[in-house]
Amino acid sequence: MNFRLLSRVLGIVCLLIGGSMSFSLPFAFPLLANRTHLPAAEALEREGIRGLVLSMAISLLVGTLLLVSGRGNRGKPLFRKEAMAVVGLSWVLATVLGALPYYLAGTEIAADQPITFIEAMFESQSGFSTTGATILTDLENPSSVPHCILFWRSWTHFLGGLGIVVLFVAILGQGSAGKAMVRAEMPGPSKEGSMPRMQHTALVFAGIYCGLNAILTAIYMLEGMTLFDGLCHAFGTMATGGFSTYNRSLGGFDSPLIEYTTILFMILAGTNFTLLYLTLMGGPRQLFQDVEFQTFIGIIAGLSGCILLFGMRAGDVGFESLGQGFRNGLFQVVSVMTTTGYGTADFDRWNNFARGSLLVLMFIGGCAGSTGGGMKVIRHVLFYKILLREIELSYRPRVVRLIRIGGTTADDPAMLRGIMVYFCLILGIFIASWMLLVTFEPSSTWGYSETSTERVEDNTLDEKLLDCASAVAATLNNIGPGLGVVGATQNYAGFSQGAKFLFVWLMLLGRVEVFSVLVLVFPTFWRRT
Amino acid sequence: MNFRLLSRVLGIVCLLIGGSMSFSLPFAFPLLANRTHLPAAEALEREGIRGLVLSMAISLLVGTLLLVSGRGNRGKPLFRKEAMAVVGLSWVLATVLGALPYYLAGTEIAADQPITFIEAMFESQSGFSTTGATILTDLENPSSVPHCILFWRSWTHFLGGLGIVVLFVAILGQGSAGKAMVRAEMPGPSKEGSMPRMQHTALVFAGIYCGLNAILTAIYMLEGMTLFDGLCHAFGTMATGGFSTYNRSLGGFDSPLIEYTTILFMILAGTNFTLLYLTLMGGPRQLFQDVEFQTFIGIIAGLSGCILLFGMRAGDVGFESLGQGFRNGLFQVVSVMTTTGYGTADFDRWNNFARGSLLVLMFIGGCAGSTGGGMKVIRHVLFYKILLREIELSYRPRVVRLIRIGGTTADDPAMLRGIMVYFCLILGIFIASWMLLVTFEPSSTWGYSETSTERVEDNTLDEKLLDCASAVAATLNNIGPGLGVVGATQNYAGFSQGAKFLFVWLMLLGRVEVFSVLVLVFPTFWRRT
Repeated sequence: MNFRLLSRVLGIVCLLIGGSMSFSLPFAFPLLANRTHLPAAEALEREGIRGLVLSMAISLLVGTLLLVSGRGNRGKPLFRKEAMAVVGLSWVLATVLGALPYYLAGTEIAADQPITFIEAMFESQSGFSTTGATILTDLENPSSVPHCILFWRSWTHFLGGLGIVVLFVAILGQGSAGKAMVRAEMPGPSKEGSMPRMQHTALVFAGIYCGLNAILTAIYMLEGMTLFDGLCHAFGTMATGGFSTYNRSLGGFDSPLIEYTTILFMILAGTNFTLLYLTLMGGPRQLFQDVEFQTFIGIIAGLSGCILLFGMRAGDVGFESLGQGFRNGLFQVVSVMTTTGYGTADFDRWNNFARGSLLVLMFIGGCAGSTGGGMKVIRHVLFYKILLREIELSYRPRVVRLIRIGGTTADDPAMLRGIMVYFCLILGIFIASWMLLVTFEPSSTWGYSETSTERVEDNTLDEKLLDCASAVAATLNNIGPGLGVVGATQNYAGFSQGAKFLFVWLMLLGRVEVFSVLVLVFPTFWRRT
Repeated sequence: MNFRLLSRVLGIVCLLIGGSMSFSLPFAFPLLANRTHLPAAEALEREGIRGLVLSMAISLLVGTLLLVSGRGNRGKPLFRKEAMAVVGLSWVLATVLGALPYYLAGTEIAADQPITFIEAMFESQSGFSTTGATILTDLENPSSVPHCILFWRSWTHFLGGLGIVVLFVAILGQGSAGKAMVRAEMPGPSKEGSMPRMQHTALVFAGIYCGLNAILTAIYMLEGMTLFDGLCHAFGTMATGGFSTYNRSLGGFDSPLIEYTTILFMILAGTNFTLLYLTLMGGPRQLFQDVEFQTFIGIIAGLSGCILLFGMRAGDVGFESLGQGFRNGLFQVVSVMTTTGYGTADFDRWNNFARGSLLVLMFIGGCAGSTGGGMKVIRHVLFYKILLREIELSYRPRVVRLIRIGGTTADDPAMLRGIMVYFCLILGIFIASWMLLVTFEPSSTWGYSETSTERVEDNTLDEKLLDCASAVAATLNNIGPGLGVVGATQNYAGFSQGAKFLFVWLMLLGRVEVFSVLVLVFPTFWRRT
């Protein structure tokens, strides 16, 4: 492990984060933050400015120190271990630095309840990892959350999404799912993985990402949002994050137009960026021929249909008419599948089929190479093919059957094993975290006392088991809202500090696809080889 | 596929099942069934005899027909496909034939509610697969369930356990887990898998199994049980089944002595039969050196301790004193871990840690090569080692590290892949069945109406999601009782016919470790090659 090089790269990351904080400052001024619901409270905005400036100073200082201690390593190559350490530690650094503005600006998670540093880290991680889970109870109250901090919150989504697109998609190729995704048709210099080509791809993808953000902001403004709301919601949509500036999330606008626009852009954000690029270059033919995209759209269409059917039958809230049911069902399926997590209806009050399938949907996620989190559609497609082949192998042990994705073989044994390992790791982390939460989270979160010797209503016990499971699923897969106490109209404020700290790590593990963080606790990883 | 040979082997299975039904007949007479709680009702016992005799006749007839249609194949070898078909289809046949006595004897699942054929299949499958889930609400009422049928019910456990020991452990070597389990020290002729050796092993194992059943029955009788109760509970314990003859299960005896005896024998039943054999031959040294057994005992000890701690802290029912808490905690952990499913306390009313960890424990199961169900301890041990290796490989891609189990390498790539595939298949089946159940099971099972447009209490919705999950886990892993409506004091009677039919297949899939049943639906499996 080359620690000096590591320090140098992390220093650059600190400087970039510190610098980008300045973008939030203008929104402290009434002119830019002219939201209708939210009259600016000047004294509090000054608190916000102070917090941001202090955080900037700290970030730039830390960055400079790291850069200085890592001097003399310009141009040295990053090997695999250094690259993994950079990814894992950058995300940890970003979480801590990103938490500073919330903490130093004295944000309140509810009236007269100032944010703790763990809660600030939760909000910061939720932003960078594009999860969109929040512990801020009242976003519309300017005495709790200053505008410039609210903008920083959405801005972390944008930065997180940009980081994903550049780092994971263009440069690292996103691990096992990425290898399956690398398409032979990709234009540019042919030598795969060469530095100029990687830089070119990164630039192109960053351009597409920023362009889509700009277009969506413009559309939102045409549809009636202010610049502030338009930018924040565009960031939330394109990064598949899901932070809103309203307590009722996107439902606060009550506008079918805005909702359908968001559905379209969430789908775009959940699509492989390579495919978006190819579509820009050569038309939509390749898009619709892609197996992963076909599956992605197929699941959305099929499940929305089923949810509409069961919702109408059960007469759920939000399914009063066919049009409304279609809109709410489709919106929620797309929102959960792309791991955005915006809400327009309280899906926690829907029937059990809808709730259960949304919970399972959390584990599917968007397409590989998109800003969407979760386990990715292509992994599920390959997983299904692996299982089918294994079943056939059990009775025809000598059959040779290559695994194909849309005509090309994808049969690298290491990649296939990687997919199985990934499924199992996610499952293991899910179960371990769920048990931790169920065991150590005080039951007062669910409003009953655990120490009483009387029989408590057993429904409440069930509620705790299920709510914990959904909270873990929603953070590990970077979605945001779950069921029950973390449902569409609720948030994570009620959990204990320990649980919030656990969620910070779950969001991180989900975002970097487990390995880059898990290796950090292995002593052999840090050994100089 | 050699259909004639298949038919011949299945014919023999039918004859064996039909013949074994005769063993239940004596228990229709008051002399043998002199249970204190259960005065014999002669007219109903006659119904039971009629049912048993009719079922015997049908089984023998079907068996003869199959034998005749498969004539001329004596001595031909069974290839892999035929062997898989035999295993899968034998279990299906046993389920159907085993259901006949319940159905033809007019058993009642509750007062004036005669059993349907699907329910009879459920009870039969639950017996043969040694699950121990029941739909019979009142076992102690002789006008609902005749004694001889009650004996048949426990007798299916014995037959199922014997089948597992002979078929899976001695002859088929139990798939991927079995391969890891095959120990080089195993005595006998050295050529592995040769016919004489397999027959010898099968005989030895069957002998140990029958011997343990006899010893346990004798101990139970010394501790105060009648012959009838002693036999039934010994069958339930040694097969890790869990059918009792009392509504309160083993708790009905209220005897610490019986409970500790049962704990000991459940642990023996959950231990690898090869190890038991080696211990019989050479003392317990090898037993305690075995990694799987060490882990098995370690999990039992650790988890019992935690449950005792949390139970005392929360002041749960059954944890009033240290001694009682220790007994109840240990009993329930052993009962769930070995997949027996006997109950002495209502663990559904314990704290969330205990409930949650018992739910997770269901997926661990006993040791490979035992009568215990579930996923088996050795698979979890190997799984953990595979994951650790993969994490290391992610940053040291060229490191060579063999997976070892207690000093010997277990690094067959096919076996390791098989373990990952098995985990993923179990997970897939679990989630698919859970969603099916949540979607199609009418909510009236939980006492509320789904069609009302009013907001129903959302606790009830959570209860349904969790109870369905636990019911699927408890049947798929061959445990028996789960949480909530299928909790320790409840049973499966409340579920719809469709759900019961689903459970029949889940128990079957769990028992034969998925593949032998899943292949039956593949068209290419049936093709003559």
